[in-house]
Amino acid sequence: MGRRRAAIVGAGHTRFGALAEGPRALLRTAISGAFASVDKGLAPSDVREAYVGTLGFSGWQLGNVSAVVAEEAGLVSAPVTRVENACASAGFALRDAVRAIESDATDVALVVGLEKMTDPTPTRRRYWLGVSGDTEWERLAGLTFAGVYALLASRHQHEYGTSREALAEVAVKNHAHAVANPNAQFRKPVTVEQVLASPRVADPLRLLDCCPVSDGAVALVLAGEDRARAYTDTPVYVAATGAGSDYLAVQERPSLTSLAATRWAAEEAFRRSGLERRQISFAEVHDCFTIAELLALEDLGFAAPGEAAALTHSGATRLGGAFPVNPDGGLKAKGHPIGATGASQAYEVFQQLRQAAGARQVRGAERALTHNVGGSGASATVTIFSVA
Amino acid sequence: MGRRRAAIVGAGHTRFGALAEGPRALLRTAISGAFASVDKGLAPSDVREAYVGTLGFSGWQLGNVSAVVAEEAGLVSAPVTRVENACASAGFALRDAVRAIESDATDVALVVGLEKMTDPTPTRRRYWLGVSGDTEWERLAGLTFAGVYALLASRHQHEYGTSREALAEVAVKNHAHAVANPNAQFRKPVTVEQVLASPRVADPLRLLDCCPVSDGAVALVLAGEDRARAYTDTPVYVAATGAGSDYLAVQERPSLTSLAATRWAAEEAFRRSGLERRQISFAEVHDCFTIAELLALEDLGFAAPGEAAALTHSGATRLGGAFPVNPDGGLKAKGHPIGATGASQAYEVFQQLRQAAGARQVRGAERALTHNVGGSGASATVTIFSVA
Repeated sequence: MGRRRAAIVGAGHTRFGALAEGPRALLRTAISGAFASVDKGLAPSDVREAYVGTLGFSGWQLGNVSAVVAEEAGLVSAPVTRVENACASAGFALRDAVRAIESDATDVALVVGLEKMTDPTPTRRRYWLGVSGDTEWERLAGLTFAGVYALLASRHQHEYGTSREALAEVAVKNHAHAVANPNAQFRKPVTVEQVLASPRVADPLRLLDCCPVSDGAVALVLAGEDRARAYTDTPVYVAATGAGSDYLAVQERPSLTSLAATRWAAEEAFRRSGLERRQISFAEVHDCFTIAELLALEDLGFAAPGEAAALTHSGATRLGGAFPVNPDGGLKAKGHPIGATGASQAYEVFQQLRQAAGARQVRGAERALTHNVGGSGASATVTIFSVA
Repeated sequence: MGRRRAAIVGAGHTRFGALAEGPRALLRTAISGAFASVDKGLAPSDVREAYVGTLGFSGWQLGNVSAVVAEEAGLVSAPVTRVENACASAGFALRDAVRAIESDATDVALVVGLEKMTDPTPTRRRYWLGVSGDTEWERLAGLTFAGVYALLASRHQHEYGTSREALAEVAVKNHAHAVANPNAQFRKPVTVEQVLASPRVADPLRLLDCCPVSDGAVALVLAGEDRARAYTDTPVYVAATGAGSDYLAVQERPSLTSLAATRWAAEEAFRRSGLERRQISFAEVHDCFTIAELLALEDLGFAAPGEAAALTHSGATRLGGAFPVNPDGGLKAKGHPIGATGASQAYEVFQQLRQAAGARQVRGAERALTHNVGGSGASATVTIFSVA
C-alpha cells in the first residue's frame, strides 16, 4: 500500500479555563499560533482543507462554524468541514484530516478544536452536555455524565476492589502535571485528602474527581510526509488512527467496567501501526472523571482488567515513571473544552515528541498515543504518533 | 496515482414532508432500505465506517447522532462520524466517506443524511436555521435565508434583467418533475401564474419560490471499486468530488450574483474527474429558492453569467430537454430536510444512472453532477458520478 502518512508540522493552543474571549478570538489565537509555530514558515494558501471539531456551545449564537474557521484562518475558498462526535469531536476531526492527506486530496490540512462552554447559562450548558448522552434511559431520568461515570466507578469498585484512594490519586497526579503546563486551567496541586474531602457530586465521585467546565481552542497543521520537511525538520508522524462506537445508554452494554469503543479503537490503531503497547512512551487519555483514566488504561491494554489502580499506585503513570499518563494535566486539571480536547491531546504529543515540553517533558519520548471519548463511551478514537 | 474510486452500491430514501415518524424511525427506514437495495446482498458487518450529515434539529432532544446511527444501522463497534456544514452536511459527509474508501481505511461505508425539522416550534426552527447564516450582520438584524436569497435575486435582476417569470419557471419545472417522484413532498404541478400570485415572502421571492420545511432521511452504501461488483452489477462510480468555502455574510463577498464556493467546488471536481461540462447528462442542484437554481447553473458552468434564465426559458433544463436539472423535483418540490439533501441528490443519481428512475428517467443518462450548498453559499460541494 502506497499510502503516505500524515505528520503534524505546527500546533497552537489557547489557555484553557473560563476565558473572556469569544469563539472567534479563541479560533484566531489557536490558528495564528499554529501557523506561526511552523519552523520554516507556512502560507495560509498552502492549506487546502480544514476540519473543525466542536460540540456546539459556541453555536448557540454562532453556527456554521466551518465558515467561521475559513474566515478566521484566512482560508476562504478552501473547504472546511465541521465534525461533531460529542467530546470526541476533535479526535474524529483529526482522523478525517489524516485521511484527506492519505487519500492525496490535499498536501496540507488544518485541524481545529473549539468550545466556548462558559457563555451559556448553566441550564443551557446542562442541556448541551446532556443530549450527548442517552436521552430515553438516562438524560430524561435525570442521569448526568457525572452520574453515568459514578455508576461505572461503583461497578469497578465492586468487581475489582478499586479503592476510593486510587481514584483520588489520578486527580493528584494530573493536578501535579498541570502545574508545569502554562495552558492548564488548574495549576495548583491537590492532595488525596483534599480530593476525598471535596463535595460529593455523584457517589463515589467528588468534585475533585471531575473535569471542569472550560473554554478553549487548539489548532494543528498537518502535512503529507513527502511535504513535511519543507515545513520543519522535526515533524511528528501519525502512525495510525483507530475508532469505534458503542450503544449510547450504558444499560445496553454487556459491561460497566470497560468501554468497548475504546477497545475497538485501540485494536484498530495498534493493528494498523504494527506497533506494540510496550513501544509507546506515554499516553494522553480521556480522563473526564478520575475513573475514566483507570478504564482507559485497562481498555487501551496498558493494564490488565482491574489492574489500573495498582499501576497508578505504583507511580508508573506519573511524570518520571515508566509510562507517564496525561503529562499535560489531562482533562481533569488542564481543562476539557469539549470539542477542543482531542486536538489538545495531539498538541501535547507534538510538544513532547519534539522534546519541547519543558518542565513536563517525558524523557526520550519517541512514540505516544492519544485517546478521545465521545459521550460516556458511545464513540472513541485512538491515534498513535511517532518521531520517525 | 493508484487511488481506487468509491461507488454507490445501494440507497434508501424516506418520503420527504411533515412526517409522523421521529428521527430514529426515519433512520431505520432509510438505512434498512439502503441495505435491502443492494442487489447481491450486504451484511451490516461489511460496513466498517459511517458518516451522518445533520444540522441538528433532531438533536434538540436527541444528540450524539453518530451513536444513534450506529445503533439503528446495527453497526455498533464501527466508527460513525457526524458532519455538520449547514444545508451541505450530507454533501460533506459523502465526501468524507469517499475519502475513507480512497485511503483504503474501509472497503464499505455508509452515508446517512437526516433532518427532523417539524418537531421544534417555529421559533426554535428559525433559530436553528438562522445560526447557519451570518450572525453579526445578518441574523441579529432580522435577515433570514429568504431575505438573503431575495437580495441575490434582486441583484441578478438588476445586473442581467432576469425576469420574475424566469424565477417562476424554475418552480414550475421542479414541481412538474416531483409529480413523478413518490418520495417528494409536493406532487402537484403549479403554473407561472400561481407562483406569481402566491404570497410575498421577501421581495422578489414569493411562497412558491421557496423550498418547504421537511422531515426525511436518506442512506447510501458505498464500496471500493474493487469490491463494488460483489454487491451489484450496476454500481455508480464517484468520479470526483470538489468543495469550497466563502465568507458567511454576503456583504463580505465581491459579488451578489454568484456563489464563489460553488465555482471553486465545481472547478475542483471537474479538474479531478478530467470530465467536461458537456459530458454531464443531468444535474441535481441546490435550489433552496428559485434564484438558487439560476445561480447554480451559472456558477457550475452550465450557463454563462446571466444566461441561466434563458436556458430555463428554452426548456433545456426540463425532463426531455437537452440538460435536465433536478429531475427529482429538487429542494423546491421534493423537499429540503436540511442534513438529508446532499444524500438525496446522490440517491437520485443512483436511480437515474442505473436507468431505474421510472417516469422521471433521464434517457441514456451516463454521468451526473450533484451540488449541495451550506448557508447562503458559505460552503458547497460538487460531486460527479459516472456509470463506468
